[in-house]
Amino acid sequence: MSRPSARSDRNRSDRRSRPPRRDQPRPPAVVEAVLPGLPTQPPGPLPEGALRVLTLGGIGEIGRNMTVFEYDGRLLVVDAGVLFPDADAPGVDLILPDFRPILDRLGDIDALVLTHGHEDHIGAVPFLLRQRPDLLIVGSPFTLALVAAKCKEHRLTPHMLVVNEGDRLTHGTFECEYFAVSHSIPQCLAVAIRTPAGVILHTGDIKLDQRPLDGRLTDLPGFSRLGDEGVDLFLCDSTNADTPGVSPSEASLGPNLTAAIGKAQGRAFVACFASNVYRVQQIVDGAVAHGRRICLLGRSMLRNMEIATDLGLLTVPEGTMVAIDDVDDIPDEQMLVVCTGSQGEPMAALSRIARGEHRTFQMRSTDTVILSSSLIPGNEHAVFGVVNRLRRAGIQVIDNRNSNVHVSGHAYAGELLFLYNAVRPSNVMPVHGEWRHLRANAELAEQTGVAHDAIAVTENGITVDLVDGRAVISGRVEVGRAYVDGVATGDIEQPTLADRLVLGEGGFISITVAIDATTGRAVAPPTLSGRGFSEDPKALVAVLPIVEQELARTQSEGIVDTHRVAQQVRRVVGKWVGETYRRRPMIVPTVIAV
Amino acid sequence: MSRPSARSDRNRSDRRSRPPRRDQPRPPAVVEAVLPGLPTQPPGPLPEGALRVLTLGGIGEIGRNMTVFEYDGRLLVVDAGVLFPDADAPGVDLILPDFRPILDRLGDIDALVLTHGHEDHIGAVPFLLRQRPDLLIVGSPFTLALVAAKCKEHRLTPHMLVVNEGDRLTHGTFECEYFAVSHSIPQCLAVAIRTPAGVILHTGDIKLDQRPLDGRLTDLPGFSRLGDEGVDLFLCDSTNADTPGVSPSEASLGPNLTAAIGKAQGRAFVACFASNVYRVQQIVDGAVAHGRRICLLGRSMLRNMEIATDLGLLTVPEGTMVAIDDVDDIPDEQMLVVCTGSQGEPMAALSRIARGEHRTFQMRSTDTVILSSSLIPGNEHAVFGVVNRLRRAGIQVIDNRNSNVHVSGHAYAGELLFLYNAVRPSNVMPVHGEWRHLRANAELAEQTGVAHDAIAVTENGITVDLVDGRAVISGRVEVGRAYVDGVATGDIEQPTLADRLVLGEGGFISITVAIDATTGRAVAPPTLSGRGFSEDPKALVAVLPIVEQELARTQSEGIVDTHRVAQQVRRVVGKWVGETYRRRPMIVPTVIAV
Repeated sequence: MSRPSARSDRNRSDRRSRPPRRDQPRPPAVVEAVLPGLPTQPPGPLPEGALRVLTLGGIGEIGRNMTVFEYDGRLLVVDAGVLFPDADAPGVDLILPDFRPILDRLGDIDALVLTHGHEDHIGAVPFLLRQRPDLLIVGSPFTLALVAAKCKEHRLTPHMLVVNEGDRLTHGTFECEYFAVSHSIPQCLAVAIRTPAGVILHTGDIKLDQRPLDGRLTDLPGFSRLGDEGVDLFLCDSTNADTPGVSPSEASLGPNLTAAIGKAQGRAFVACFASNVYRVQQIVDGAVAHGRRICLLGRSMLRNMEIATDLGLLTVPEGTMVAIDDVDDIPDEQMLVVCTGSQGEPMAALSRIARGEHRTFQMRSTDTVILSSSLIPGNEHAVFGVVNRLRRAGIQVIDNRNSNVHVSGHAYAGELLFLYNAVRPSNVMPVHGEWRHLRANAELAEQTGVAHDAIAVTENGITVDLVDGRAVISGRVEVGRAYVDGVATGDIEQPTLADRLVLGEGGFISITVAIDATTGRAVAPPTLSGRGFSEDPKALVAVLPIVEQELARTQSEGIVDTHRVAQQVRRVVGKWVGETYRRRPMIVPTVIAV
Repeated sequence: MSRPSARSDRNRSDRRSRPPRRDQPRPPAVVEAVLPGLPTQPPGPLPEGALRVLTLGGIGEIGRNMTVFEYDGRLLVVDAGVLFPDADAPGVDLILPDFRPILDRLGDIDALVLTHGHEDHIGAVPFLLRQRPDLLIVGSPFTLALVAAKCKEHRLTPHMLVVNEGDRLTHGTFECEYFAVSHSIPQCLAVAIRTPAGVILHTGDIKLDQRPLDGRLTDLPGFSRLGDEGVDLFLCDSTNADTPGVSPSEASLGPNLTAAIGKAQGRAFVACFASNVYRVQQIVDGAVAHGRRICLLGRSMLRNMEIATDLGLLTVPEGTMVAIDDVDDIPDEQMLVVCTGSQGEPMAALSRIARGEHRTFQMRSTDTVILSSSLIPGNEHAVFGVVNRLRRAGIQVIDNRNSNVHVSGHAYAGELLFLYNAVRPSNVMPVHGEWRHLRANAELAEQTGVAHDAIAVTENGITVDLVDGRAVISGRVEVGRAYVDGVATGDIEQPTLADRLVLGEGGFISITVAIDATTGRAVAPPTLSGRGFSEDPKALVAVLPIVEQELARTQSEGIVDTHRVAQQVRRVVGKWVGETYRRRPMIVPTVIAV
């Protein structure tokens, strides 16, 4: 009854005579059919001298990236991120990679290498540390600073090792070389992993920005050198593989942002991702160019920019910053606010302002709001909700649809071709993407000459073994999703989410019955109540006699087992509601014997 | 407790130490603050010789378009559409305009004029007819054929009057002239409404396609003539007002669609809107050009194309169509399927195929799927879900992001400028759009010389009076949303939806207590159960003693009133769950006195 797939489909198929619903449909909760050609059984023991790759997250989804490399009984983990839930996981805060396949082997991990500081790469670190507090965490200074701040919130003290591009050092069994990579957050690293089994290159998140703001180019020469040496397996970011051409440089935004800020009549608000230091730097430069003071708004924005400033990654002229308590002293036309909320997150600064719920900032029709951000699919409803509220108040809104104020941090198809031609890998494994991205990435690899059967398009849990220089799909380890809701983790599983989906669509009807423990006779009239079912107080009156009739029947049959009585009550009420209202609320009978 | 605004905000603000959620946030259910400058009070009596405009839907939203014109005690209604619900209205099938303001005046309606046959313009007609069965419905042949088919499903026989472009006839008090308009469905009409109060022009949905497939141009010369005569109030489609430039012609797709079909190795599936006859015609032409047979898939697709064929609007060569039962006889490379589901609607043909649940069509890696459609904001999650399933199976997917296979049916900013300069209205009222669209449209009107204070940017329920050639905002009529869920209408209101949102996010915990009616003593141990709360059967064990303790307290205070006991139980359980789990399930106590 409570499987949303069956449930909601039945629900809808009843209604085929109505126009198709355009609201977020609920994909069936049933496990996807196994992809043709992918194994269903666990892999055998790893052959002597071979290396195994196991992805716990990040394949078939954008988020919770986590890849485990195994050689000679030891493990190296690259990234441990979170996935932000969508409509399939209502009420959930975060989705973590499934640690279970390595839980009993956490002691074998030589290091956790973090390619960069985005949530989908570091967000799960505290949860992993709870399992193994002394885990060695390797990353660039900025990445580790963000990790440290995050761990502090979780009251954890991570054991960290700072590395920089060009470093080549050994973590236990694994020799790792780090390469500079440009992306939308500072100090990103690609990592080459050397073992006797061969050389593996993992890009992390990558873009080939040819004029990065910090002059820190993606190290194509280094990749080429590695290619000369021979890359046996190449794990490559797929996020924009289905976008033709080459992504614009971050630097190309500067003039547009400065111009947009210059056009603003009153206050200027610019929303962007709180970790994009480059973007904030260009916004700061634009503000300074037009003699505006700057106020940072949003917890993560303040924290990240403080870290960036400490590390010399963000430069703000003396006396430019304004604390939120002092903004009233600044004339509107001299004020610029850099804030969070570019994705319409309901509790972020911009959303609060747009809802008129912000403590300090009330909307003014003379304001200009610049959304210097992408529109992450699934967030359109939230973002346009914010935009409409701002426009309703007469505020000018500048976004990427009417002006070029954002660029992606992920390589487009054209850049990936450069990568493949530099690395010249013998085997390829597309990572970091949904299916549409992974397939597109695989096609690009093939276009550069990688053999079709040397490209492993896999799924989370699929193991790929590197044996004698050949990457072979060797088996499937069962992996699921670990949901974080509130403080607790691990107690939210698919059935609970299925119940939430059913309750969210149709509410519930509860029927409480007290029967005599010995005779089964109802000792009080049944109590019916519904929530989320109908506004009409009389909606359920007509079902009451049907319930009483059913109770008389169960009693006459001498049924005293409360569960059996409950079953019968659920059946008759569910049937009645379906026929009467064409709705499928959850039916919740409670039968107590007194 | 069950207001989602308060609730879910409190919920989230508790969790500020976590990364912002990126799932569909739930906008507060609180009524939007009244827009500065818009009235809060009902309008006074309509002045002698003045005309009143009241919008019941379609302003601040894209959907459920319905505008009421009043002159000399009589009413003319333009369009009666539905809005497809989004995340704010879970479980709801349709949202109708609020008829209440005109319910007691249905007898005064001289005619319901339908500009075209899209659901957001005709979907509410059956619900209006139930209130007044003999209502005169006016529209073009194709529009009325769709209305007749829809009414048949509702077992209603509408009283209809066919009109065509160029017709100028009187419905009671209102003299209406009809103009040809191009859009994404055949035989669209704009309507000029003449009364002694002045001339009003309502565009309906409009595009200035300069080479429409049917040669039926938007009648700019007609609009210019009307402009010479003088248009006192111009109601204009705002949908694409914030999109710069001019929309591509429908005809520009033909070569692209034909080329995409030609590239397909095996079967070709093309998904588009079931009412876009022009699109289907071009797909048919492309199929014929490559010697493919055509199968129409999806109930609405079959119905609409049958109507279009009967009216001579769709031409398919003899022997080209294949019934679904005969497709197995056709080789893959000679097969093309035109189907519904371009928006990822879960029960539409394409979604069923992608989920592997279609009776006739199983996915083959050699298939090519063309999404000849827009991505309606809010549907991205659903659409990409379908695309990912197809790509996962190795199917090629062609859409507007990698190829030009769709154009919009709504005028871009550049086209609207042409319109304003042809009509030269003295007053303007942007309609058919969210706030971002209405504001953009108003700015365009101003750019063409319309006085700022002659542009009425309003809301649903706001009345605009045309008095002595001036449009003045005269008052506010209370309007809400009418939700259709299952068979019943009118019993779903905001509180029920609020409950669904709370239940969908956190599930519920029910506590059933039986007390002695006289002493208030618990006669059986409390029964606790939760759905959508936790997978852990022991999750609630720890709260049981707290409940019993509270019951002892209420008994000691001699409280026998079941409602008061229930309140106390709700309080202690809610407090405990919030502190223990940081979750906000709905707490549902049931106390019965035996």
